[in-house]
Amino acid sequence: MGTLIDQALVAEHNAKLKADLDADYEALAGSLSRRGVDIETLTAQAEKFAVALPSWGAGTGGTRFARFPGKGEPRNVFEKLDDCAVIHQLTRATPGVSLHFPWDKISDTAELREKARSHGLYFDLVNSNTFQDQPGQAHTYKYGSLTAQNAAAREQAVAHNIECIELGRALGSKGLTVWIGDGANFPGQNNLRGSLERYLDSMRAIYAALPDDWQVYIEHKLFEPAFYATTIADWGTSFACAQELGPKAKCLVDLGHHAPNTNIEMIVARLAQFGKLGGFHFNDSKYGDDDLDSGSINPFQLFLVFNELADAAQREGASFKTANMLDQSHNVTDPIESLMSSAVEVQRAFVQAALVDREALRGFQESNDVLNAAQTLKKAFRTDVSPILAMARLRIGGAIDPVAAYRSAGYREQVAVARPAKAGASSSGIV
Amino acid sequence: MGTLIDQALVAEHNAKLKADLDADYEALAGSLSRRGVDIETLTAQAEKFAVALPSWGAGTGGTRFARFPGKGEPRNVFEKLDDCAVIHQLTRATPGVSLHFPWDKISDTAELREKARSHGLYFDLVNSNTFQDQPGQAHTYKYGSLTAQNAAAREQAVAHNIECIELGRALGSKGLTVWIGDGANFPGQNNLRGSLERYLDSMRAIYAALPDDWQVYIEHKLFEPAFYATTIADWGTSFACAQELGPKAKCLVDLGHHAPNTNIEMIVARLAQFGKLGGFHFNDSKYGDDDLDSGSINPFQLFLVFNELADAAQREGASFKTANMLDQSHNVTDPIESLMSSAVEVQRAFVQAALVDREALRGFQESNDVLNAAQTLKKAFRTDVSPILAMARLRIGGAIDPVAAYRSAGYREQVAVARPAKAGASSSGIV
Amino acid sequence: MGTLIDQALVAEHNAKLKADLDADYEALAGSLSRRGVDIETLTAQAEKFAVALPSWGAGTGGTRFARFPGKGEPRNVFEKLDDCAVIHQLTRATPGVSLHFPWDKISDTAELREKARSHGLYFDLVNSNTFQDQPGQAHTYKYGSLTAQNAAAREQAVAHNIECIELGRALGSKGLTVWIGDGANFPGQNNLRGSLERYLDSMRAIYAALPDDWQVYIEHKLFEPAFYATTIADWGTSFACAQELGPKAKCLVDLGHHAPNTNIEMIVARLAQFGKLGGFHFNDSKYGDDDLDSGSINPFQLFLVFNELADAAQREGASFKTANMLDQSHNVTDPIESLMSSAVEVQRAFVQAALVDREALRGFQESNDVLNAAQTLKKAFRTDVSPILAMARLRIGGAIDPVAAYRSAGYREQVAVARPAKAGASSSGIV
Amino acid sequence: MGTLIDQALVAEHNAKLKADLDADYEALAGSLSRRGVDIETLTAQAEKFAVALPSWGAGTGGTRFARFPGKGEPRNVFEKLDDCAVIHQLTRATPGVSLHFPWDKISDTAELREKARSHGLYFDLVNSNTFQDQPGQAHTYKYGSLTAQNAAAREQAVAHNIECIELGRALGSKGLTVWIGDGANFPGQNNLRGSLERYLDSMRAIYAALPDDWQVYIEHKLFEPAFYATTIADWGTSFACAQELGPKAKCLVDLGHHAPNTNIEMIVARLAQFGKLGGFHFNDSKYGDDDLDSGSINPFQLFLVFNELADAAQREGASFKTANMLDQSHNVTDPIESLMSSAVEVQRAFVQAALVDREALRGFQESNDVLNAAQTLKKAFRTDVSPILAMARLRIGGAIDPVAAYRSAGYREQVAVARPAKAGASSSGIV
Repeated sequence: MGTLIDQALVAEHNAKLKADLDADYEALAGSLSRRGVDIETLTAQAEKFAVALPSWGAGTGGTRFARFPGKGEPRNVFEKLDDCAVIHQLTRATPGVSLHFPWDKISDTAELREKARSHGLYFDLVNSNTFQDQPGQAHTYKYGSLTAQNAAAREQAVAHNIECIELGRALGSKGLTVWIGDGANFPGQNNLRGSLERYLDSMRAIYAALPDDWQVYIEHKLFEPAFYATTIADWGTSFACAQELGPKAKCLVDLGHHAPNTNIEMIVARLAQFGKLGGFHFNDSKYGDDDLDSGSINPFQLFLVFNELADAAQREGASFKTANMLDQSHNVTDPIESLMSSAVEVQRAFVQAALVDREALRGFQESNDVLNAAQTLKKAFRTDVSPILAMARLRIGGAIDPVAAYRSAGYREQVAVARPAKAGASSSGIV
Repeated sequence: MGTLIDQALVAEHNAKLKADLDADYEALAGSLSRRGVDIETLTAQAEKFAVALPSWGAGTGGTRFARFPGKGEPRNVFEKLDDCAVIHQLTRATPGVSLHFPWDKISDTAELREKARSHGLYFDLVNSNTFQDQPGQAHTYKYGSLTAQNAAAREQAVAHNIECIELGRALGSKGLTVWIGDGANFPGQNNLRGSLERYLDSMRAIYAALPDDWQVYIEHKLFEPAFYATTIADWGTSFACAQELGPKAKCLVDLGHHAPNTNIEMIVARLAQFGKLGGFHFNDSKYGDDDLDSGSINPFQLFLVFNELADAAQREGASFKTANMLDQSHNVTDPIESLMSSAVEVQRAFVQAALVDREALRGFQESNDVLNAAQTLKKAFRTDVSPILAMARLRIGGAIDPVAAYRSAGYREQVAVARPAKAGASSSGIV
Repeated sequence: MGTLIDQALVAEHNAKLKADLDADYEALAGSLSRRGVDIETLTAQAEKFAVALPSWGAGTGGTRFARFPGKGEPRNVFEKLDDCAVIHQLTRATPGVSLHFPWDKISDTAELREKARSHGLYFDLVNSNTFQDQPGQAHTYKYGSLTAQNAAAREQAVAHNIECIELGRALGSKGLTVWIGDGANFPGQNNLRGSLERYLDSMRAIYAALPDDWQVYIEHKLFEPAFYATTIADWGTSFACAQELGPKAKCLVDLGHHAPNTNIEMIVARLAQFGKLGGFHFNDSKYGDDDLDSGSINPFQLFLVFNELADAAQREGASFKTANMLDQSHNVTDPIESLMSSAVEVQRAFVQAALVDREALRGFQESNDVLNAAQTLKKAFRTDVSPILAMARLRIGGAIDPVAAYRSAGYREQVAVARPAKAGASSSGIV
Repeated sequence: MGTLIDQALVAEHNAKLKADLDADYEALAGSLSRRGVDIETLTAQAEKFAVALPSWGAGTGGTRFARFPGKGEPRNVFEKLDDCAVIHQLTRATPGVSLHFPWDKISDTAELREKARSHGLYFDLVNSNTFQDQPGQAHTYKYGSLTAQNAAAREQAVAHNIECIELGRALGSKGLTVWIGDGANFPGQNNLRGSLERYLDSMRAIYAALPDDWQVYIEHKLFEPAFYATTIADWGTSFACAQELGPKAKCLVDLGHHAPNTNIEMIVARLAQFGKLGGFHFNDSKYGDDDLDSGSINPFQLFLVFNELADAAQREGASFKTANMLDQSHNVTDPIESLMSSAVEVQRAFVQAALVDREALRGFQESNDVLNAAQTLKKAFRTDVSPILAMARLRIGGAIDPVAAYRSAGYREQVAVARPAKAGASSSGIV
């Protein structure tokens, strides 16, 4: 594991911070104990938390106006894997990596799988890409992919998705996420119903190619790149399609893909109720699909999403499980730093949701004691669980302060030397 | 029909405008003919158009801040029916009236039915009301009605809906629209999933009481009166519930009940595709559930909705039918004038959609000629079909210019004398 | 002060909670001390915090659909003052009360002032009301008040505002807040520019009547009750008008009066920069002017607003001051409970903003260390300052847990007996 | 003018359509005449209408996800000018071209000016670009340009703007539009007030370099590329800055740069009232800065904007003038076709606004006849003025149907041969 940060450096970092952490942890333990909460139960839950990393998140992102590259950006899937390994080494919360094809496509999947294994990583969901044309591609997706009028383009898009399943299978993945940009920029460009009929036809072919233990995740998004009508624009469409396809089809919720003012946690509750909640792309946003760092804009909303997951877990028991990953665009920060701190933010929401006194909540709800019901959630959210998260990391081999440890290790400077800058947008899927 | 406007006055009004209308009609006929369109086919379609009136729309509306009453507002369902009769007399486009209970509840339904018949009106969908407490009501809806934690409140709400069905049956109606304000103002107030489970339980009881030839229409709305989470907030929830309930349950689309930026015509297409499009509440809005006059803010959107209906009608044939009504709040205009001009606006969109050259459109879509596909819709929308609408009215007994005819007849002044002003908000359902 | 809660009950309440509070406070003091922060400085700041109460907030609010009254609602300004006194007694954070005329108009201002003084309260900004017609009013505001086409209606509205100044002066207030509902429901209803010209004319007359030590606060709002175009719709219009009027005119920011996705803290920064930030109406919202409890939906946003106020205070020094009040509609909670917990939420944001390490923040900003700049704010926000708030209350005579103390004192039950329920909407300004 | 379409082809095209146009024109003339409107007055106004073209609009646009190139895209400013010349040749409505530097920067401005002159074109406003880094640039704009913390980056950005003024001066332009992407992706990234202070400092330096007969136009935008806080985010900030800078600074309104639900025509009215309305970037949008074709999504809104311009022109007289241009991204259409049909759409709104009976409107407004006031606007908007636009084009040398004429001339096929495709994003400013 030569590409990771020297674990001795991590230990040194932890040693400096341990006394303060112990004191903070003890202080929090006391406060929680006075509320009847055992801190160790929470810490144990925090230790088991995991959220997957997007391979494309390891590079600097951009907008349609510009991309301002960072230093030492990964140039291929192996280097992305190295960066992901560092994130997991320090946070111990990100063992899964989600690949995107063809950006991450390589011929020797065995080598890649071995590389991941050696880093303690595994491959989470794989992602197809029919929102871009690749060099030499026979049929353009300019006017759609899975929904294109042109049957050859549709078949090409279906074939690509089936190839993604095969690549994922070879890598040990268990699911495929399908996000398409298909839609219209003008009223009249598409027959709205015809487009969805073609989508369903294409998806049925992909669905048929799923291995028995796989799932396909439909990801909806309100707009961009289509600006008048997006074929899979909302959870209602995603849900209807998942129903049409069958039990292996689920809905994926990206936190930035909704209309303004949408109550996202209610969508989570609805999909859970109707058996179609598949997973999440975590990020934050203020305007649209901004792909900002998780919890950076509206941390209470992130907590409320996890509150629904905790409710669903209590109802469904051990069978309840969602595929969770980060999906962010890091335009002005070091991607490794953003992914580390974002993983921690998601973990924070998870632990805060575990803190909710559900029995008390239910009682307040049943008696219409609205104020105390609301305060029950706020009390959990207000609790600063940072010492729990740090202690969990420390106990399972991570860093008390991942960003500080990463900086002191000089990882970015080292890879900046090893990975000379490329000009312009990268072909490895960093937008 | 003594309460209607003297038909001689209407004839006199028409006589003054007829020469100009004939000239305009001929001019338009010529232009359409050069485009290969026969004006008479369109006029015949216009003659058959109908949109129902909401009984509560006959009074002046208001906001939570104030209601500024108008003159001669109807004080009971009979007077509302008189006003609706005048609207239909002059527009010949509004033969159906939709009642709201308990606002419009009377003991003698036979008398009411006879009154409607004598006016040439019939009763369209009936509406229940569990968003307000009525004097003497046993259980409050403050914390919900069909979704309330309190089982007695739920049962009371279910019983009210069943009573509405019975009243509607006696009046010749064939459907019930259910809109509830249930939801939460605080995170934690409700268990989001529990609320919908209770909703489904309540609706199953209502569904079971539907006569064979009835349908129940689920109306969703993003927010107001609940401001954090509304139980039936979006078309996805409406659709999932309609599916759970069965074939007699359909979804109703109110044009002002969606999140900002929502593509409403696509929701229409989706519901049509999946067999759950029930009907419409037509109005217009810029911000929320503004309940402005149809087509007053975004007439192109209204056209695009009718374009989807025309597409669905072409696909489904004679079996395709939706329950259409106006649902507006007339705060600063004479409600009769607003309802007349709004009915005409909806009729306008219907005729413009009928003008779309669907074969050409399909060709442009198939060849990805995006610009011409878009222009095909715009060309239909740009056509000023006013002469067609006026000629249709004239031919079937209405007024060439309904608002002008209404004003010159002095109807409002007459009822202002007969109906002295009441103070404050009315108990007859005018908000 | 016979209407207040027996202070012995408060002491008893505090005695039960004191040991836990001491322990929590000590634990937090230790954690803060390890971050280099002195808890006592923060507690001292918390003790000095104040936010004014709206007299109309003491009653149960409603929507245009319904109002579900609560028990023991105040029936006049004296009873409202009693409720406000209880809120201040327990929170020690709400010494100011903001009146609304004519709802709170009484002939004997001296008696009212004495009542307030005896409760330890004073009168903050006064509010005029030209968005409703009062019984017997000569000219309607149906088509506008300060902007009406009808000169007599404008003059009446101006005169009412001047009367509000006189009433406020007699009560010791130092400012007038002007919010109007004027606007249009239809394109074409108003000449947009003409309406604002008339507004400015009217406001100049009001401005001329301001005493030397008074300010007038312009409150903007995107929509409702006008649904197409509101004359004072955004901060840009508010700002331009405040400039036209002169140095005594300032802009007031209500947190729920903006377009979706608006960055409210940036508006605060802009108004502060250009010398026109006057004050706030605190509440929270998800969709529109929802008037939910402060911090209940997006607590991070509330913190960011206070972060701007802390920045401005550091720049401007002692001269920087804003008029802050709660403005909420309590539809499903006990208004006293909501106002108490909301005052605490606003105070929480104030203390969290005081916790921001501004020197470190500036350093991170200057070096473009975006991640650490962001984390500097998040760290302050994440800190659970509840023990500081409780200790501050305890030290200056309030309750450790205001809602619990209030409930155990049985205040609501007592006033429910003394104040029998009224039917329907109240004439005392509770909407 | 060898690169233009053969005028004989245009004549031939017109000859085929002239009989129908004459008939349609006569039919419309009759209908208008019955409304008291002289068609020739309108046609004469249409003939004088002009809207400028963006040089960058001549290429195919894209999103952050992908760009799907079209055939025969212009590779440099000369080829862009050729395309613009064709657009103007056929529409006779687009004599001005707006350049963007450094995309359009060339050493020999005289040659460029001569080329434009020979095409009958002139240079409208010039645009600076500090939202991208150029190869070899000394200081990055990753963390801001005119607002950057780094003084050297700010100075570089100022210098670039001054260079744009110099280039524009040499080309005969009279104004500079400044749009920056500066802002923050995280709360805390920038000091919100400090950023605007630096902006004003930078702009003062640019303002000082303006020639006497020049103006600088500040263009605001809610979001993108900054996703938390954009320094020049709204018209209020734009207006305040224009005031700070002086009389040569004006505000530019892009129709897609506002928060959801914003009433854009009211912003136009406000800026006109306060003397700061500078000009427009015309396009249409449904979600954000979608840059769709003008009038393709909400044509009534475009009309209402022109209605305000007509009102301002009537108030201000000959001195009232705005700088108008198209600013669109053509992702799925031929840019030449989209620019032609969009210019016509803008011209359509201009003529429809000229059709408004302003005296009648004023009368309805003064008497609060809201319904008729609204109908006065709708009547003008509903009028299909296509024959007026076509006749105006015909009379001044353009094509009756510009898109059809363009297609039949085979221009795109010809330039596709002359301009071989480039891979990837272009360096000539097409995003």
